[in-house]
Amino acid sequence: MDIQNYMQQLGQAARAAAAEVAKASTAAKNTALLAMAQAVRERRDELCAANAADVAQARQEGLDAAMIERLTLNAKGIETMAQGLEQVAALPDPVGEITDLKRRPSGIQVGKMRVPIGVVGIIYEARPNVTADAAALCLKSGNAAILRGGREALRSNQAIAACVREGLKAAGLPETVVQVIETTDRAAVGHLVAMPQYVDVIVPRGGKGLIERVSAEARVPVIKHLDGNCHVYVDDAADAAKALRIVENAKTQRLGTCNTAESLLIARSVASAQLPKIANMLIGKGVEIRGCAETQKLVPAAKAATEEDYYTEYLAAIISVKVVVDVSEAITHINKYSSQHTDAIVTENYTHAMRFLREVDSASVMVNASTRFADGFEYGLGAEIGISTDKFHARGPVGLEGLTSQKWIVLGDGEVRG
Amino acid sequence: MDIQNYMQQLGQAARAAAAEVAKASTAAKNTALLAMAQAVRERRDELCAANAADVAQARQEGLDAAMIERLTLNAKGIETMAQGLEQVAALPDPVGEITDLKRRPSGIQVGKMRVPIGVVGIIYEARPNVTADAAALCLKSGNAAILRGGREALRSNQAIAACVREGLKAAGLPETVVQVIETTDRAAVGHLVAMPQYVDVIVPRGGKGLIERVSAEARVPVIKHLDGNCHVYVDDAADAAKALRIVENAKTQRLGTCNTAESLLIARSVASAQLPKIANMLIGKGVEIRGCAETQKLVPAAKAATEEDYYTEYLAAIISVKVVVDVSEAITHINKYSSQHTDAIVTENYTHAMRFLREVDSASVMVNASTRFADGFEYGLGAEIGISTDKFHARGPVGLEGLTSQKWIVLGDGEVRG
Repeated sequence: MDIQNYMQQLGQAARAAAAEVAKASTAAKNTALLAMAQAVRERRDELCAANAADVAQARQEGLDAAMIERLTLNAKGIETMAQGLEQVAALPDPVGEITDLKRRPSGIQVGKMRVPIGVVGIIYEARPNVTADAAALCLKSGNAAILRGGREALRSNQAIAACVREGLKAAGLPETVVQVIETTDRAAVGHLVAMPQYVDVIVPRGGKGLIERVSAEARVPVIKHLDGNCHVYVDDAADAAKALRIVENAKTQRLGTCNTAESLLIARSVASAQLPKIANMLIGKGVEIRGCAETQKLVPAAKAATEEDYYTEYLAAIISVKVVVDVSEAITHINKYSSQHTDAIVTENYTHAMRFLREVDSASVMVNASTRFADGFEYGLGAEIGISTDKFHARGPVGLEGLTSQKWIVLGDGEVRG
Repeated sequence: MDIQNYMQQLGQAARAAAAEVAKASTAAKNTALLAMAQAVRERRDELCAANAADVAQARQEGLDAAMIERLTLNAKGIETMAQGLEQVAALPDPVGEITDLKRRPSGIQVGKMRVPIGVVGIIYEARPNVTADAAALCLKSGNAAILRGGREALRSNQAIAACVREGLKAAGLPETVVQVIETTDRAAVGHLVAMPQYVDVIVPRGGKGLIERVSAEARVPVIKHLDGNCHVYVDDAADAAKALRIVENAKTQRLGTCNTAESLLIARSVASAQLPKIANMLIGKGVEIRGCAETQKLVPAAKAATEEDYYTEYLAAIISVKVVVDVSEAITHINKYSSQHTDAIVTENYTHAMRFLREVDSASVMVNASTRFADGFEYGLGAEIGISTDKFHARGPVGLEGLTSQKWIVLGDGEVRG
């Protein structure tokens, strides 16, 4: 197989399909999404069989338990996938939305219209449900998609792709609106990210290794999501009860998510009063504490934190802790060590809250709320294609809007420029 | 001089300055801009002398008249530059603007805050006034800037840079907020566009050669502006008087701007009634007509247009003309040949207007208005750093807003995720 030629063909087909789907009606897109959901339910046994073959091979190849868990698609997972397609159908169509129309002194009205980006390339790892989720979000936002799933999930992804094509066909849309790469050759990724003539943006979803490789090789924009080294800062003006509740939730509600807090900062003036209680709560929930010298004095069970600890996204029952002078030191520390994902302050002080909101350079900045809220569903986006830690184009959870752009429109009545 | 080392130093200084200017108050930024304007006026003779030396050298090197015109900075140009700085001071500060706050079912309020992008690299050619314009827009939008002007304008740019630094100093801002590259070595550009750790976006302003080189070498996002091959489509439902007026203005008001119309499309059913009049008007103004076979029948003076003509941005007294069946063929033609800059329809038909707005994939799409309106000032942006023909991040005229991004903010009262 000539990979370059194959990828060029996919690219050409996607570019042609993008022009069609960009002008598709909301009704056609929703019909396709609902038909996909129906196909997923009807072909449940087929999907389970394809996935079982993938899982069997993964076991044979000795893949680890976590990978096999992510790969596995059972009847419940298939129903969730179908419901996800229906939820995207229920979201408002962002394409064609006109905003900000203002009349100018010349008489023309100038505004913006939301439009699709064009062709979106999505590269992901083991989870086969991403095939359906990504297809749905790209279709609803009027884009064509080229999907590249994990090698381990090839059979599952092909089976899901068949359902997606069935849905597109039922709505009279080109089946090439969503194409799933059919080879596991890694060279395909290299071509996908370097065809600016056919692909407008790349969304890599997966581990840091994948994202770094894609970013390094890409010749088109990348919506990337690196670490989630999230902080909670307990200010000198914090409400102690809110602080305790927020740290508990941010660190312990789920240990392995990107919006889990990995580091706790606390103002010196309230550390002796509040840190022991917070630490006891964490230790009681099995969390290991790695702190600065002051933390170790207040929390005898705490181990010493290294410089490296403050940079670390543990995704585990460990938290780094540092006593800081005030909100200024907290902001400086966060802007140095944070991965610019999500950081929160707990405070009752208006000016501290405003400074933290303004000066912390992260995708999500919160006052008196758990970092765990940084999520497309919690933010009301309905669904998300990923969480961007970039600053260009889209930051934080990326939903339908992040897969669109805005063009200028001018409504005139024969005006000319003087 | 070790160029790589020099550029790394500029990059590090810019990154550090970006953190400072991002949190600078509106008052400090405006103080700096007004002090820059004052410095430009006070140092007028110095600026004229530096520019005269650049111009003398350019003449000696035999640069062409157009280049020398762009390079020349006289007393009037210096006053315009000072006024431009004052105008940017008068624009609203986009940084810190909070929008779209909505309460979610969890109780948190989720919204967006506008923030600077970080470090902006701007690469331009002969015009020295870009040094002041770009510095002003980057500063006001809270970004640090690294500027690389044309080799020919080195002395002028250094003199303007001194005024910029004086303004920054007067406001207590780091002088490294705006740095002008002091070497004419072309390798500096190669480094500037490939330092993602220090530079967040590149804006090339200049000819196609420059922009293509920058795009090919860039390892960071580029806000680029390629051709302006703009169309006016006269629909079968066009008001003939509006059509004549708009074509006249779009083609002949200025011949050499990127928003000048380069191609005229007209619906077959009105071509015999309207095209001869439009053509006579154009011919009367010295415009050469290159048309399809049908055009040549209706306009005996028309030459035959080649396929290449329809792709061409003439920037001259030439227009390509094609008779099309209807709005569908017009849209198809434009999406094939246009440079996605600005395209207009003249029509009284609502559905044709709506289809054209939705389906023409260009940065600016207009109904019953001259393409010449595609401009930051006409759109109310106050000033523009350039016009983007990209779809990612910013499209069309890029003002202060295009130099910013939005982060998410969450305002809570102790909420945690359930």
